[in-house]
Amino acid sequence: MAEQITIERAQQLKQKPDENKLGFGQYYTDHMFILEYHADKGWHSGRVVPYQNISLDPAAKVFHYGQTVFEGLKAYRTESGIKLFRPTKNFERLNKSNARLSIPPIDEKLAYEGLIQLLNVDRDWVPSVEGTSLYIRPFIIATEAALGVNPSLSYLFMIIMSPVGAYYAEGVNPVKIHVESHFVRAVAGGVGEAKTAGNYAAGLNAQEEAKEQGYSQVLWLDGVHRKFIEEVGSMNVFFKLNGVVVTPMLNGSILDGITRNSVITLLKHWGVPVEERRVSIDELIEAHHNGTLEEAFGTGTAAVISPIGELSYHGEKYVINGGETGELSAKIYDTITGIQNGKLEDPFGWLVALD
Amino acid sequence: MAEQITIERAQQLKQKPDENKLGFGQYYTDHMFILEYHADKGWHSGRVVPYQNISLDPAAKVFHYGQTVFEGLKAYRTESGIKLFRPTKNFERLNKSNARLSIPPIDEKLAYEGLIQLLNVDRDWVPSVEGTSLYIRPFIIATEAALGVNPSLSYLFMIIMSPVGAYYAEGVNPVKIHVESHFVRAVAGGVGEAKTAGNYAAGLNAQEEAKEQGYSQVLWLDGVHRKFIEEVGSMNVFFKLNGVVVTPMLNGSILDGITRNSVITLLKHWGVPVEERRVSIDELIEAHHNGTLEEAFGTGTAAVISPIGELSYHGEKYVINGGETGELSAKIYDTITGIQNGKLEDPFGWLVALD
Repeated sequence: MAEQITIERAQQLKQKPDENKLGFGQYYTDHMFILEYHADKGWHSGRVVPYQNISLDPAAKVFHYGQTVFEGLKAYRTESGIKLFRPTKNFERLNKSNARLSIPPIDEKLAYEGLIQLLNVDRDWVPSVEGTSLYIRPFIIATEAALGVNPSLSYLFMIIMSPVGAYYAEGVNPVKIHVESHFVRAVAGGVGEAKTAGNYAAGLNAQEEAKEQGYSQVLWLDGVHRKFIEEVGSMNVFFKLNGVVVTPMLNGSILDGITRNSVITLLKHWGVPVEERRVSIDELIEAHHNGTLEEAFGTGTAAVISPIGELSYHGEKYVINGGETGELSAKIYDTITGIQNGKLEDPFGWLVALD
Repeated sequence: MAEQITIERAQQLKQKPDENKLGFGQYYTDHMFILEYHADKGWHSGRVVPYQNISLDPAAKVFHYGQTVFEGLKAYRTESGIKLFRPTKNFERLNKSNARLSIPPIDEKLAYEGLIQLLNVDRDWVPSVEGTSLYIRPFIIATEAALGVNPSLSYLFMIIMSPVGAYYAEGVNPVKIHVESHFVRAVAGGVGEAKTAGNYAAGLNAQEEAKEQGYSQVLWLDGVHRKFIEEVGSMNVFFKLNGVVVTPMLNGSILDGITRNSVITLLKHWGVPVEERRVSIDELIEAHHNGTLEEAFGTGTAAVISPIGELSYHGEKYVINGGETGELSAKIYDTITGIQNGKLEDPFGWLVALD
């Protein structure tokens, strides 16, 4: 359809925040990308515009029935220019989420082109301090003003961007995790595999309770047997058991994480045995007793690698690797972030240059 | 706190739609109610204002993490004035949903007072044609512009209203229902009991597939055993089995429906045996074979009573009561709608007068 993306530049640019105090998702760049969908026109009117509020009818379906999906990826400032990490994966996954949420598929190339144009306009916002990056949030919301429970006839696809530091206040230091035995995040047959708002809303209660007890996040167990590991917080999770790295297989209720995929690829490249399979909490506890639960870590775009120093389950505490970041966890973190910031070779072709 | 609710009237009123062609949730009244929450001020600034778009930062948490709850209730025009059906139940349930979604509790009296003031301003919108009513949609959305996955620090509570006719095109005629064996709506430990957006988003795929096959809605089975009945579409469900009315017990994954509660109350009042317990699809099929599956119907605010004329499960069709509305289903429908529109006595004190 050769849709033309238009660009409207902000008349006044914001003052950029201190790169040493970015936090996560607190500041937004000067512009955003918008693409509209109407049932009779398809996706249309792609444009880069000044970052601004959006105006919606209070009956818009996103407010009532949660028909929405999102993605998260990052751009990095390297010595050889601005680079994106595996961006096409995100747009592929966005369309998988769309299918699960009854949202019409987006033209992945058009969405990607929108991102490139937006990044080009806001390129000065990609921070350069070590450990920082530009977090990119594409998302789609249902905008039809109608209270019947049906898929919306209109949508907005948007991309907003935020310069970020570390996701966890702890940085890459190990976090303490509460194994959740009451609340459930998702179940087979549900939307756990999709990157959609409801999955995150469902996790807030458990997360708040865990925080009150001094834990950073929860480890989710499956909703059927209440014993198989699913995710940690909003990340995928890995365990090193007697030299073998194990992660829950993709079962329909966990996210097909891009960092997860990158970690598996890296481990195979290194010749480290890695298994995608069911992992039960009982297996982990037995491994802890045997001294073979060597390392544990979460993986996600926001935190990259988040080492787990302690698990709490049914009142018992299980310290992992003396509460320190494991050797392999550190090596994976250093390698992925090294590839991302251009300081290490990129043997997998993960980086895509903006220019 | 004796918060004062202010009223700003619309300068121009909309033309009212034809009361014989209202549909469901297509038209909105001239005004809406807004109440704001900020972590440092609590709920404040309650006001009735002209119905209008709301302006939100694209990073508002409702778009990304689905932190939102809603309610649905109706006002009726009766010969003795405008009446609400059990409205305080809705505000009680809203706060239960709030607790599950980590949203701060609302002052139920203030929210209710907001509704009364709004209804008073828009009282001409309560339709009078038989079968019509004014559908009222209170809802809360998380408005903080921050991408960390945490409860929002700010919210909007709003009430919008829509004059409605029948929810289903079929009216009170029986609908055909597909028993869903692949998709799952909710699971124990999840948010199925809360009236929150994600539950509805999760159901769209199954609903669309059912529609393609000629069914109005799906009958949800539990996510653990995949055999116990949960809900039908977004309604609670009842079965008359050999003279006994059976409905799934409140188990944490189904909604505590106000119409469900009204039906149970009514049946007990009539001396009809009613049981809240687990009901399996196998039990229903066996009852069908035995000729004891006498009636089936969904209950909800939107449709009140929706008779089920046929179930489809694993390719087999099970016609109920010859595909006709059952005698008891019709009696319940006539009684509840008769109480609602003021034509029958209200022995339970369910109606609350606006004036």
